[in-house]
Amino acid sequence: MVLILMLCGRIFEFYLITNIMRKIRLFIAASLDGYIARKSGEVDWLFTDQDYGYTEFYNQLDTVLMGRKTYEQVLQFGEYPYKKKQGFVFSQTRHGERDENVEFIGESLREFVNGLRQASGDDIWLVGGSEIIHYFIKHGFLDELILAIHPIILGDGIPLIIKDKSLDMKLKFKQVKSYDSGLLQVFYNLETN
Amino acid sequence: MVLILMLCGRIFEFYLITNIMRKIRLFIAASLDGYIARKSGEVDWLFTDQDYGYTEFYNQLDTVLMGRKTYEQVLQFGEYPYKKKQGFVFSQTRHGERDENVEFIGESLREFVNGLRQASGDDIWLVGGSEIIHYFIKHGFLDELILAIHPIILGDGIPLIIKDKSLDMKLKFKQVKSYDSGLLQVFYNLETN
Repeated sequence: MVLILMLCGRIFEFYLITNIMRKIRLFIAASLDGYIARKSGEVDWLFTDQDYGYTEFYNQLDTVLMGRKTYEQVLQFGEYPYKKKQGFVFSQTRHGERDENVEFIGESLREFVNGLRQASGDDIWLVGGSEIIHYFIKHGFLDELILAIHPIILGDGIPLIIKDKSLDMKLKFKQVKSYDSGLLQVFYNLETN
Repeated sequence: MVLILMLCGRIFEFYLITNIMRKIRLFIAASLDGYIARKSGEVDWLFTDQDYGYTEFYNQLDTVLMGRKTYEQVLQFGEYPYKKKQGFVFSQTRHGERDENVEFIGESLREFVNGLRQASGDDIWLVGGSEIIHYFIKHGFLDELILAIHPIILGDGIPLIIKDKSLDMKLKFKQVKSYDSGLLQVFYNLETN
């Protein structure tokens, strides 16, 4: 009887994970040598001639997450572009604050992320940058990586994946799309906790 | 008349470059985060379940090039595997020496490489490692990059492309092959000098 109850629990857990839990997805561009921006934060090298699946991806989301530096950089580009999505920015110094676009989260990140994933809703986009990506990968919070590999060597910049030997892990390749421009879009699933 | 002669010269140069000059090709594996080996030099994470085009590639070569550290590591794996190819190892301290497998080159690298490219023969494989790859990319000596991106994050290791902001350059994407194992093989052409 106990065994059957345990089994039912497991099946329910599996159902939750596969059917209800929202996916946290990283949709991002990088150079062939793995930089998401120049050291200065510049992304002048990004291909903007096509949509590269962005609109389709964006329509599957209702929430965006990003680090404070990324948020500030996004604002520098002009009007905040994700107004129609619920937005959270990770910042220890602004924890609990809220502005016209986003809410700032700086404490109990694990509980916050788990709460987000278990709440009902559409997918969640982890916009970046480097530090928050590292945090999400390290803690098993990232479900999917959609990487637009540009046919460019930048030589230096802000890394997609910060050096940290504790990150040693396998990914599950799903598919690849190649574009005439030379951009390669690769889809991976990650193992999450 | 002078113009016609100049034009003929240009056409001949173009013919040389496209038809006679041998290609220097980098056929190599890396993790998704751009490492060709762990810090210790270990490549225990490499997929060995399939050939991944290696035999076909290897049959197009008659010459192999590598750095001294790579050569020493190759020897540690057992018998030297490239006995049927002409071999050159870059080493300043052993310049001019020769052993049973290779000749050591440590001076006038530019002249040596240009001489190799202009000599008749089959393609040339730049085996590695990191330092010599950097030298070849930086000096425009590399014609082709065939990169086997493993679905793995190593977190740390020996980089495929050493950090150097002067490397800023575009590549020409040729094709991509995906394998059931999740390995992605990407073919790029580089601009050479």
